[in-house]
Order: sequence, then C-alpha cells, then structure tokens
Amino acid sequence: MTTTEAKQLLLDTHAEIKHIVTATAVMHWDENAEPYPPEQGAAARGAAQGYLYEKAFGLSISPQIKEALDLLTADPSGLDEYERDMVKIWKKSYDKNFKVPPAEIAALESVVSQAMQAWMKAKQSNDFDTMLPWYDKIFEFQHKMADYIGYNKHPYDALLDKFEEGMTVELCDAFFAQLREELVPLLAAVQASGRQPDDSFLRQACDTATQAALNHEVAEWMGLDFNRLQMGTTEHPFMLVIGRDDIRMTTHYYEDDLMSALFSTLHEGGHALYELNLPQALSPYGLDEAASTAFHESQSRTFENVFGRSRQLMPHLLEKLKKHFPQQFADVTSEQLYAAVNIAQPSLIRVEADELTYCLHIMLRYEMEKDIMERKLTAADLPRVWNEKMQAYFGITPPDDKSGCLQDTHWSSGLFGYFPSYALGNAFSAQLVAKMRESVDVDDCLARGDFAPLTAWLAQHVHVHGCRLTPSELIVAATGEPLNAKYYVDYLKQKFIAVYGL
Amino acid sequence: MTTTEAKQLLLDTHAEIKHIVTATAVMHWDENAEPYPPEQGAAARGAAQGYLYEKAFGLSISPQIKEALDLLTADPSGLDEYERDMVKIWKKSYDKNFKVPPAEIAALESVVSQAMQAWMKAKQSNDFDTMLPWYDKIFEFQHKMADYIGYNKHPYDALLDKFEEGMTVELCDAFFAQLREELVPLLAAVQASGRQPDDSFLRQACDTATQAALNHEVAEWMGLDFNRLQMGTTEHPFMLVIGRDDIRMTTHYYEDDLMSALFSTLHEGGHALYELNLPQALSPYGLDEAASTAFHESQSRTFENVFGRSRQLMPHLLEKLKKHFPQQFADVTSEQLYAAVNIAQPSLIRVEADELTYCLHIMLRYEMEKDIMERKLTAADLPRVWNEKMQAYFGITPPDDKSGCLQDTHWSSGLFGYFPSYALGNAFSAQLVAKMRESVDVDDCLARGDFAPLTAWLAQHVHVHGCRLTPSELIVAATGEPLNAKYYVDYLKQKFIAVYGL
Repeated sequence: MTTTEAKQLLLDTHAEIKHIVTATAVMHWDENAEPYPPEQGAAARGAAQGYLYEKAFGLSISPQIKEALDLLTADPSGLDEYERDMVKIWKKSYDKNFKVPPAEIAALESVVSQAMQAWMKAKQSNDFDTMLPWYDKIFEFQHKMADYIGYNKHPYDALLDKFEEGMTVELCDAFFAQLREELVPLLAAVQASGRQPDDSFLRQACDTATQAALNHEVAEWMGLDFNRLQMGTTEHPFMLVIGRDDIRMTTHYYEDDLMSALFSTLHEGGHALYELNLPQALSPYGLDEAASTAFHESQSRTFENVFGRSRQLMPHLLEKLKKHFPQQFADVTSEQLYAAVNIAQPSLIRVEADELTYCLHIMLRYEMEKDIMERKLTAADLPRVWNEKMQAYFGITPPDDKSGCLQDTHWSSGLFGYFPSYALGNAFSAQLVAKMRESVDVDDCLARGDFAPLTAWLAQHVHVHGCRLTPSELIVAATGEPLNAKYYVDYLKQKFIAVYGL
Repeated sequence: MTTTEAKQLLLDTHAEIKHIVTATAVMHWDENAEPYPPEQGAAARGAAQGYLYEKAFGLSISPQIKEALDLLTADPSGLDEYERDMVKIWKKSYDKNFKVPPAEIAALESVVSQAMQAWMKAKQSNDFDTMLPWYDKIFEFQHKMADYIGYNKHPYDALLDKFEEGMTVELCDAFFAQLREELVPLLAAVQASGRQPDDSFLRQACDTATQAALNHEVAEWMGLDFNRLQMGTTEHPFMLVIGRDDIRMTTHYYEDDLMSALFSTLHEGGHALYELNLPQALSPYGLDEAASTAFHESQSRTFENVFGRSRQLMPHLLEKLKKHFPQQFADVTSEQLYAAVNIAQPSLIRVEADELTYCLHIMLRYEMEKDIMERKLTAADLPRVWNEKMQAYFGITPPDDKSGCLQDTHWSSGLFGYFPSYALGNAFSAQLVAKMRESVDVDDCLARGDFAPLTAWLAQHVHVHGCRLTPSELIVAATGEPLNAKYYVDYLKQKFIAVYGL
C-alpha cells in the first residue's frame, strides 16, 4: 500500500461510512419523531439498524484501515494538515474502539431500539417494572463496553471519555464539588429570601398548533435555515444530524406550559446552529463534527439560558408571545416575564429544571452512573436510590417513577457517561460568552433582538474548528484559558442575586 | 461449496439484503411522506440511498451467489419446496439483472431521488421546463436498461416484463384493443344518455382533520392493523413495505373533495391487506412478496371499486360520512351517493378518473412509453403529445401541465413499464371477484359491511402464495382460467348500464 493509496482508502471509506450513517440517522428519526412507526415493526427495524452499525463499524476498523493508519502515522509527510488531522482522529478512535467486536455494538443497538419503544410506553404508563429487564441488559452492556475499552482508575472513566475526551471520575468529582460549594449556599439564600415570582400567566392553556407557529418563528429568528433543517415533535426533544445540509430537531408541545417548547426550541436550535455552521470543506475528512458533547451543550445552553433568559431579550420574547397569544399575555410586562422564566426552586424534572438547580440534577445522575459502574447499584435499585437522592438534594420525593428515574431517555437509549457533559456544557457556555463580551456588545445585540453577531462570534471561534481540536484545546483557543468553573458560578450569582434581590 | 453451504449462503445473503432494503424503504418514506425533509439534504440522502441500493444489488449478484445458484439449480435434491422456489426465483432475477452494472442502478437511484424533489416543485408551480433535464436523464436510463436487460421484439418488452413477468407489447396491444372495442361504445352510450348524476354534495368544504379521523376509521373497518401499519399524508398516495410488520400508506386530503382521500384509503388499504396477509413463514426465502404489480393493483382496485363503489356498501359509507360530516350529508340518500361516486365522464387526472375511463388514461401512457422506447418521442414532446392524445381520446385538452403530463410521479421516480399493470390489475380484480362469488355471498357481505369473509377469500386464494406462482400461474390457480378481459368488461357494462339506465 502506497501513501497515496492509504490516503485514498481513508477518504473513500469515510464516504462509505457517511452513507451508512445517513441511512441509520434517517431510521433513528423515523423511530423517534412523531408520528411514531408501527410498533410491531420495531424488532425488524432495530435488526436492520444493528446490521448497518456493524457494517459501518467494520469498515472503520478493517485490517486495511489499520495498515493505512499505521503507514500514515509513521510517515505523514505526504499529507496536508486536514489529512493529518483525519489520520490522527481516526487512529485515536481506532485504538479506542478496535477492541469492541462489531457484533457487540450491533447487539446493543438492537436492544436499544426495542428498549426505546418499551421506555416510551413505560414512562407513559408509569410502569418501571417493564423497563427492568431492558435496563439490566443495557447496564450489563456498559460494564462490557468499559472492559473492552479499558481504563486506568475507574470503569466509568472509559465511558466518560467517549463523550468528553480526557474526562475522568477524578476530574468530575472535583468539578461537581466546586459547583456544590458555591451553588448550594446560593440556592439556600434564594429559598431563604421567601420571594418567589409569579409565573401563573405561563400556565394558561395555549393551543399547540399556535405554539408550533410561534416556535417556527423563533427558529427563523435564531437564523435557522429551513432549507437545511426540519422541526418535528417527539416525547423528548432532540437534535439529529442526517447530513451537513439536513439537520432535524424536535420539541414537545404541552398545552398548559408553552415555555417548555419555547426554551426547548432555543436549546435544540443552539445545537442546530453549531451543526449548520460547521465548515462543509471539512466534510471529506470527517472533521465536520462538534468538538465534544459538552461543547455541543455549551451552544444549546447559550441560546436557551444565557441569551434566551436574559433581561435584554425579554421585550422581544414578550412581543412574540403577545402576537401569538394576545389574551394570555395582554397584561404581562417584560420584567414579570423575566422574573417568571428565572425562578429558582427544587423541581422533579431535569429538562424543566431552572439554571440554578440544573447541575444538581446532573450530579444525581452522575453519582448513580458511577455507582452502577462500581456495581454498587443495579437496575432494580433505581427507583429507591433516585428518590432518596431527590429527597437529600432537593428536599422532595417524586410522586411516581415517570417523574423520577423513568424521566430521561438516556439510559434506555444506551447513553452512559453522557450526563456530566450537560454540566460541563453550562460551564463552557458561561466562559465563552464572557470572552465574547470583550469584542461584541452582547447586551446591545440582545436588546436589539439581533442574534447574528452572537452566532457569528460562535461560528468564528468555536464552530469553525469542527473536531480538529480536542475540547480542552478548543476552550483555550476560543477563550485563552482552560475550563474555569468561575465564569459559570459568577454568571449564576450575578443573575440570581439580582432576580431575588439578595 | 457444498449444497448445504450454498443454501446457507442464499439464506444469509437474503437476510442481509432485507436489512438494507428496510433501511432504503425508511429513507423512501422519509423523502416522500409529510413532513418532507429539508430540500438541501436531498442530494446527500439520494447518494446514500444509491450506495445502499448498489450494495444490496451487488450482494444479490456476487460470484458466490452465481456459484450457489448454479450448483443448486443443477442439483436441487437437498432442497425442500420453499428452498427450490427461492433458488428458482433468485436465478430468474439473476439472469435478468446480472447484466446491469450496480453503479448504473445507483446512478439512476441518485438521479431519481433529486428528480422526485424537482417534480414536487414543478407540479406545484406548473413548470414543465424545470423537469425537462430530469426526464431526459431518466428516459435515457430506460433505453440503457432495456439494452442491458435485452428483449426479443421490442425494447419496451424488457421493461414491461420487470413488473409483469411475460408481458409484451404484443400482448398489451391486443389487451388494450379488446378493452377499446367494448368500452368506447359503452362510454359513448353513457354520454349519449345525457344523464349525469348530481355530485355537488361531494364538493363541499370538509375539514381535513375530520377527514383524517374518517379515513382512519375506514382503515380500521377494512381490517388494517395499526400495530403493523402507519398512515401518513403525501402529494401522491402510495403504499410502502418497510418490513413484514411495518406497512406504510399515505393519502392526500383535499378540503373540497373528501371522496378523493376516502377512495385512496380503500385503494392503498387493498394494497396493504395484500402485504399484511403474506405468510410470515415465507419470509426467510424471500417468497413473501406479491405475485406482480398487476396482482397488487387487483387487490387495491377490488377494495376501491368493486367493493368500495358497490351499491351494497353505500349505506355503510353514507353512515360514516354522516357521522363525521353531519351537515354536509344530512339530506343525502344512499342511492344519490351511489350514483355520485359512479359518474362516468372524460377527466384530466388519472388518479381521479372513474372506473369506465380509467383504462383510457392508462392506454394514453402506454402508447407514450412505447413511443419513447421506440425513440419516436423525447422528453420535450411530452406536453404536446399528451395534450393531443387527451383531445383525441377524451375530447378535452388539459389547461396546464400539472393537470397533464406532470400529474404522475412515475416518470420522475423512474417507473417505466409500470402503467399497464394498472389496467391488468382491474381485469384481474373483476375475474377474482367473479370467482369469489361462487363460494362467498359477496353482495350479502357488502350489505352487512363485513369485509372479513371477502379478505379471507383473497388471503386464501391470492395472498397465501406470495410470489411462488407467476402472475399467469396465479390467476389460473385462483380462478381456474387464464386472464380473461371478459369479466372486467361484463362488470363495467352491468354497472354502468344500471347507473345510467341504458
């Protein structure tokens, strides 16, 4: 194999894998966006997805690929910088993954496809027991995966690293300790204030078709291009990449809680903008991907919280609400809306949690996943332990499992080690916007309802790099320093001290 | 390769191909059912579909498959009857297809995926010119396909045979001549009668959401199982098989023409019942497929026309219409509805055409496809020739191309040689129901609104065989004689003489 042949093999194989990934992504959309496909067909669809995952995975770790990677790693002289990055990243993922047999991946995907169907029903009917065998199977897969991938100190490290390169239990323990130290007293002060803004005007019945019109308008306002993006509805909102020009995102419309869909549109829209701004020119090399899960979350949280819940943006949000729901919002002021969307209080549901308590929800899940990986917890323990922790951290006990351990899609979809990224994403978000303020008048943009300069900054400092930089390299490249939880803590303190007049 | 190995290779390869076909079917659904996916992503999705088609096709004609087929054809002694049929059918299709290079199939599929997007826009904006380059490309592909496949007398024979084994221009010319001889005088007599039933009550505004509820009810009434079937909406209704337990069908709701969706549900529902009743036990051998396109069409036409437009069923249809649209149907009688849904007259749109004129629409398309394959016609001639023929056969000229040559999805989706199957399907339908009447009291079942015995007869005499019999074998097995256009002509004569009091 010559250098040229090796390079061409990588480019051609990447194109093949991309075709397969496009197909499996469409199947994922079909399975998870409304209208849901016929239930009895789930097993066959899952088997087909498993087959294709196995094929794609097999292509990426074939003996020819190993030969090409070894050759080009040893002598990268004939490669340009993009090809070098392609080789570097592929080699890293090869080394990480080549121990996992393709059949194992396929088996997990097949189980997951059925578990997702089961979870949707179990959550609806609040029936944890039907999920028990699925969680058992999926947790056992996680133990196997950790063993296949390998780790130095903790089996959970192997899974954390899948989503956030270099992340470990040691770093996470320290990160969450730092947040806990600052945020628990802040939440205590908020609760001690005895003040709680009125948000009853957000709980009025709002027709879901009108909500859909509002949310499409908000998506366009954000700069999302419907020639390259589709919005759908689902149980649990998500963003999905089908191709560089085909991004799908979903929301869930609740008749009596229109802000849920609105902030989920801002959130998923932030994810979508990252994908829509990744440079097309990086695609042939497979470098047109986000830096990490946490970086992806930093973009969604920036739009949902830092921008979407800012005092400056409120007049614009209110104007749109008044346009679509004139009666419901007739007497609401911008300041009332600002206070109502920034209430901090203990709550049951992570995706509905406020900015201040959000990380405590993540901490709970982090601790449980860690204990599962240490075999201190089994699937059967989930409801009890979940509820104990809820009581300990939030002072409340979920009335049922659908508001408790059944609420998230992650475990049924095989996502393990993913949750901590949400918290890291919030920290990245605050740090990025702090840096952005040095060159862009963020408050003025928000006050004018103009997202363009804000998105442009993110595109130029974050999106432009694709996955060429690791998350730790990217945060330094974009902000000039490593991850620093201080920006996040300062941001939260400043906001909630003001909202609650502490 | 031993006989056992050869057999196992075929079974395993069939399972692989089925996985890929499941994925491409889901992609087809995503592309063609509402909500339509982002337009800019169409090229990448088309390329992915092309890649997968090529893979599946490549698997089905690999050198190992050829070896296995040759071995088992030479010595089928170790095979049971299902395995023998699998080998026989695979060999036939191998011999027919192995001359078409996989890359050619992939190129066509990629073009088709983009042409479909273009067609949806061209039809909407009545812009034939934008379709011209796509039709040019697709027609050239048909010439190439005919040459690759080969034929004895006429290049069109190669394409006709793809959908209806053994069908030729010679047989079609004779078939259409027979219909023309009997139906043209009948239509003339209908027109000469000067009588035309009132159907104005069918043109009232009917909310599409209520129509959707009505159509779901009709689908359930037909015996369609929503655990195995999904109904969607689209520009041009279709039925699609994703898996044995995953059938998708669509309709198009028109605000001012509710019968369009209603009869399309009966039509696509007839297709779906065929697929839902194919024996699961035939699946491992790939024998769980319809006998032919025309046989598929015979099932849809039976439900849409022979049952759906029968005098006996009318009280039940009317009852459902009154339930969902009480005001619109308050004063309508069953006899008025029967007359209104059996109007015979010249019309522009094939899918909206009545039973009597339908075959003339097919004849027009058959003649044009034949002329295209003789290179007497090019894509640029389509609007002119279409309109000339409409004037000659129907006495009307389409006011625009979207009511003319742009109306059908077939040419933009690469379906060539398919149209004649619709006419043959009608003929099969009449012949099957004539036979059914010997053992089932069809009129009594319809009068009771009970589809179960009728579907059971079709399941036992048609569906049960899958594709183990050729269409000409199946019509003999089910009715005791070869295709006989007489049943169809008699059926139409009897109905329209009665409706028009001739």
